[in-house]
Amino acid sequence: MTDSATLSRKFSSKVEDHLRQIAKLLEKHRLVEIMVNRDRASPRHDLIESLVHRQHLVELQLKLRSLHPADIAFILEALPLDDRLLVWRQMQDAQGGGVLLEVSDAVRDSLIEILERPALVRVLGQLDADDLTELAEAVPEDVLTEVLQSLNARDRDWLQTTMAHAEDQVGHLMSQDVLTVRENQRVEQVLWLLRGRNDLPPNTDSLFVVDARHLLKGILPLRALLLNDPQTPLVELVLTDSVVFNATDNADDAARAFERYDLVSAPVVNERGRLVGRLTVDEVMDYIRAESEADVLNMAGLRGDEDLFAPIWDSARNRWLWLSINLCTAFIASRAIGLFEATITQIVALATLMPIVAGIGGNSGNQTTALVVRGLALGEITPANTWHLVFKELGVGLLNGVAWGATVGLFAYLLYWNLPLGGVMAAAMLLNLLLAAAMGVAIPLILHHLGRDPALGSSVLLTFITDGMGFFIFLGLATVFLL
Amino acid sequence: MTDSATLSRKFSSKVEDHLRQIAKLLEKHRLVEIMVNRDRASPRHDLIESLVHRQHLVELQLKLRSLHPADIAFILEALPLDDRLLVWRQMQDAQGGGVLLEVSDAVRDSLIEILERPALVRVLGQLDADDLTELAEAVPEDVLTEVLQSLNARDRDWLQTTMAHAEDQVGHLMSQDVLTVRENQRVEQVLWLLRGRNDLPPNTDSLFVVDARHLLKGILPLRALLLNDPQTPLVELVLTDSVVFNATDNADDAARAFERYDLVSAPVVNERGRLVGRLTVDEVMDYIRAESEADVLNMAGLRGDEDLFAPIWDSARNRWLWLSINLCTAFIASRAIGLFEATITQIVALATLMPIVAGIGGNSGNQTTALVVRGLALGEITPANTWHLVFKELGVGLLNGVAWGATVGLFAYLLYWNLPLGGVMAAAMLLNLLLAAAMGVAIPLILHHLGRDPALGSSVLLTFITDGMGFFIFLGLATVFLL
Repeated sequence: MTDSATLSRKFSSKVEDHLRQIAKLLEKHRLVEIMVNRDRASPRHDLIESLVHRQHLVELQLKLRSLHPADIAFILEALPLDDRLLVWRQMQDAQGGGVLLEVSDAVRDSLIEILERPALVRVLGQLDADDLTELAEAVPEDVLTEVLQSLNARDRDWLQTTMAHAEDQVGHLMSQDVLTVRENQRVEQVLWLLRGRNDLPPNTDSLFVVDARHLLKGILPLRALLLNDPQTPLVELVLTDSVVFNATDNADDAARAFERYDLVSAPVVNERGRLVGRLTVDEVMDYIRAESEADVLNMAGLRGDEDLFAPIWDSARNRWLWLSINLCTAFIASRAIGLFEATITQIVALATLMPIVAGIGGNSGNQTTALVVRGLALGEITPANTWHLVFKELGVGLLNGVAWGATVGLFAYLLYWNLPLGGVMAAAMLLNLLLAAAMGVAIPLILHHLGRDPALGSSVLLTFITDGMGFFIFLGLATVFLL
Repeated sequence: MTDSATLSRKFSSKVEDHLRQIAKLLEKHRLVEIMVNRDRASPRHDLIESLVHRQHLVELQLKLRSLHPADIAFILEALPLDDRLLVWRQMQDAQGGGVLLEVSDAVRDSLIEILERPALVRVLGQLDADDLTELAEAVPEDVLTEVLQSLNARDRDWLQTTMAHAEDQVGHLMSQDVLTVRENQRVEQVLWLLRGRNDLPPNTDSLFVVDARHLLKGILPLRALLLNDPQTPLVELVLTDSVVFNATDNADDAARAFERYDLVSAPVVNERGRLVGRLTVDEVMDYIRAESEADVLNMAGLRGDEDLFAPIWDSARNRWLWLSINLCTAFIASRAIGLFEATITQIVALATLMPIVAGIGGNSGNQTTALVVRGLALGEITPANTWHLVFKELGVGLLNGVAWGATVGLFAYLLYWNLPLGGVMAAAMLLNLLLAAAMGVAIPLILHHLGRDPALGSSVLLTFITDGMGFFIFLGLATVFLL
């Protein structure tokens, strides 16, 4: 790849290479630091070493200057806290704002926390109103107020409008850099207008057509300007059946629309049909990524985004909510065992086998839950097909229950040469898998109908039921049939 | 939203409305069907009802004709199998190809399975070579061969080239519709060239500049054509520091680059720097969505994408792999309990408490694993920072172990008024959480170094260890200190 390698300097598809180079620089820097500290006594060494020392920092500064803000953001995320601050300090103020926009929420918080207030104000002062909206929630109130004073009235208004929308609304994600034209113009006039500009806003694939009251009339794809004769009247080229978002639309729906219709940008209107902003694919892609990462972390019982190198105390706190909920459910489930301590004393094999019944029930139920949660997120589960889904999952539960019940029953029999014990094990497994299937559908549906996010908590609730009831069914059957 | 509502007919951000309308039509259709079947005896009714019957189908056809293929795909996914086939049959052949492209893998398989061979060949015949690549793996070999015969030699070559790349390589996702220009032209000439075309390929935000040997020299953003004077030589406008992908690049890296640099399209070259194709944001967005959904489903123990309304047998099979793995690990872990049956007979409270130690260990370890898996996926975990991460997670484990160990120890004491039992519980909890932290980092790192996907199986392995060792530590300590 000789030719194309020379093409990409500032941009790289393998940002890991930059990270490796910077890590190496930091290591050298730290080595020198250690040597300086050791040789404190000898003043002769000091000068030489502080020169070497500074040389590494200069090298670091040069390296950083050549990088895209998104790459610097990536590198900061991969560095432990002290290195992160060291690298940040070598950056220029002008880069800082772009980097803050690109880092993950958790790392952004860590940077804002350690930055001195004047430095933070300086960095934020480099950003426009659209960018500030993205950062506003992470910035301390008083710093934000100070930064706002340097904005003009229009930008301040914009910031307040977008911030008034919830984080999952289109109005929160839209940007204000719209280019509008009037329907009564010709291609030529628009081309002249554009040539008078220095640049177009990023991700501009269309201009928006409005009337005198700024009501949206349609969109004009840029390609139409390129493909058609300059004399063509715009009215022949304007698309009126394209996607338009309302500022109060749900961002998930908007993201789905971008995926379905392969959009690059789309107009956003208010409730009266007035054009208020523009939604672009880069914002949507960031939104999708953030949402899917939040889902994965939530499923693993993390409350939110966590900095890989967060201080121990912050990390621990991020995990306590779900650990404490799990502890409560585990305690309650264990009381189901407590009910049957007398049975266990007589047949101690039950204690060995009971985690299997509970565990497989939980696994199987979580499979169902994951499908239902995804179906709900996509809007594919409707009142019309819910029963279909319930019967299908019960069918799968029955099939699995018979197959796996027989398997574990056989194992239990072979292990203890006790046929009734094997039978109880098989029956408990079947019942727990049927329960898991029913609950696997019911729990996310109920959470959804209560207006809660089914991705949050479905799994914990399900495991609670399959554990508790798994113990109860197994030990209950054993008490009835084996004693 | 009066004005803008009239704007969007074919496109909608709320595809659920279409689904509801179609579900209603299907319901009416089915009601009539039931009535017809009931009144079989009376020939007089028959005619009227079959007319009503047909009327609903015509209404359905009209409705489908007005929808975007992506919306039809969504609707098919949300319908049980028999309704799905009924709706598919009301569609025009020309729509079928687009719909097959948009449905999820699992639903695509279900449709291809039920379609008659000639119908499938007809539908696939509507697609171009780029689209066929996407479907090729799902289509039976002989059908594909038949469809390929209708392609011209160039398209056949293209299909073979892209199919030769692995599914997670850029070469598999790229499309062939590139527009190229030469560096020695002027803006005016390119504008003339474009006006001679009917349309541009979707997501075209730049043209690619190549030399006589088709080696990539740079990219020419469309905006440069609009913003600059027609007399400007292209050489002044060509960007040479933009992102270029190699056909063998990893698709995950490419997706990250699209996100980082907010790309809409980028050139793809072969190992000699020759332009071979183009990667676009819509493909990348589909890839990101598919990957993140696969992650969520894998974490829940599903092997792959599953049709919400798959036949019971297919669903059950999709779940067996992980259920059987879980069953094996649960059995082995339960043998740890089996070692201490004598201890449990003497202190039956241990049987009640042991699932708590194992469960909280598993939860805590899975939190660590989720962070490490994400860090590895982002490339943020390097040899330089691994030890930092290990110490941080051990620190969190220690903190959590002391806090939660004390809590559960106290509970155990209060439940059984047995102080040594509380002490053993607390110690076992602390040890298991430390083990969970160490394993939570180690397991995904080891899987990663072995070249395996750490998202697959980390959680199962971890739970196996925290369960088995949780039982072993708790019952072992109890045997030593309580008997």
